[in-house]
Amino acid sequence: MPKQVDHRERRGRIAEALWTVAERDGLAAATVRQVAAEAGVSVGMVQHYFATKDEMLLFALQWVGEEFRGRITARVGALPEPRDPYEVIRIVLVERMPLDPRRRIYVLALVAWLGRAVENPELARYMLEGTRELRDRLADLLRTAQAAGRVAARIDPLRTADGLLAFADGLSSHLLQNLHTPQEAEDVLREYLARLFEPA
Amino acid sequence: MPKQVDHRERRGRIAEALWTVAERDGLAAATVRQVAAEAGVSVGMVQHYFATKDEMLLFALQWVGEEFRGRITARVGALPEPRDPYEVIRIVLVERMPLDPRRRIYVLALVAWLGRAVENPELARYMLEGTRELRDRLADLLRTAQAAGRVAARIDPLRTADGLLAFADGLSSHLLQNLHTPQEAEDVLREYLARLFEPA
Repeated sequence: MPKQVDHRERRGRIAEALWTVAERDGLAAATVRQVAAEAGVSVGMVQHYFATKDEMLLFALQWVGEEFRGRITARVGALPEPRDPYEVIRIVLVERMPLDPRRRIYVLALVAWLGRAVENPELARYMLEGTRELRDRLADLLRTAQAAGRVAARIDPLRTADGLLAFADGLSSHLLQNLHTPQEAEDVLREYLARLFEPA
Repeated sequence: MPKQVDHRERRGRIAEALWTVAERDGLAAATVRQVAAEAGVSVGMVQHYFATKDEMLLFALQWVGEEFRGRITARVGALPEPRDPYEVIRIVLVERMPLDPRRRIYVLALVAWLGRAVENPELARYMLEGTRELRDRLADLLRTAQAAGRVAARIDPLRTADGLLAFADGLSSHLLQNLHTPQEAEDVLREYLARLFEPA
């Protein structure tokens, strides 16, 4: 049988190398050359998969984004049935926050890229789609919570989801600024959710 | 009388030129050379006032930050006495949002700089102090609102201020992503504040 090259595995290895370099030396150090060296592949190999540094970074964002989504799915799946919508929302928001070095560098990359997205339509679309998808998921969770009588029927799920996501993204930004310890950030989130949810 | 050079005026003129270039051509275009050309001064003059590009950008952030603070003071001052704490908080938050091109490029600069602050302690300190100052101001406004019976006595003013500021900063970031129109963003803010404030 002909040898099959696992392209996805190779791209993933490059993405992992990018995050290793960025965690160790900062995002600016994650050049094609440095990433290739870290991945143990040639610069030409990286360029074979990614025509530009931006393409490489975009894939790396998607790669680790999937990892985080997988962790959310696992943690939500481990909740006892019927799942408490409060806990589901808390997990979805907490898992995206920069509470450890890997998520910190990921959020830093998103922030750095938000600034560049004005000049890069593909990146802007990726970020906007990700934000919309999450906002819609939060709105669905709020509807479920309303149906279960945990959130007041009078609130607008979509506008409230917009606010909840804005709140979580701002809190992430404040964590990057070291305004809060991780524990404080979780307290601020609990305080926010307590105002939204009725007592169980 | 010897001619007095107005250094503050000169630095301000350079800061204004920086924002003009950034609004027109993007932040990356705001190099010392371009800013000097826009301000109608020599590169040497810019370098006389700012040893590095970072110093120039930091001053430009402070310069326009003062302008926005001045606008908040004026709008709050124009409210009828006794000032409604709901309206004061709304003005403080709305005026910081990227709702016009000048504020948009300012917020973009803050976002771009948040990413760089990890490597620039002076910048990190400036951003953290600004965030803390605003958080403390919001906490004071919430205490005033509690004393006036407009916000429930049981909430923790500092944690709630943390949440309010996180919410506003996240909403600004979503405005940059074009998730919301300015009108939608103001609606999301109103919805948030309505949940915090008791009916007048």
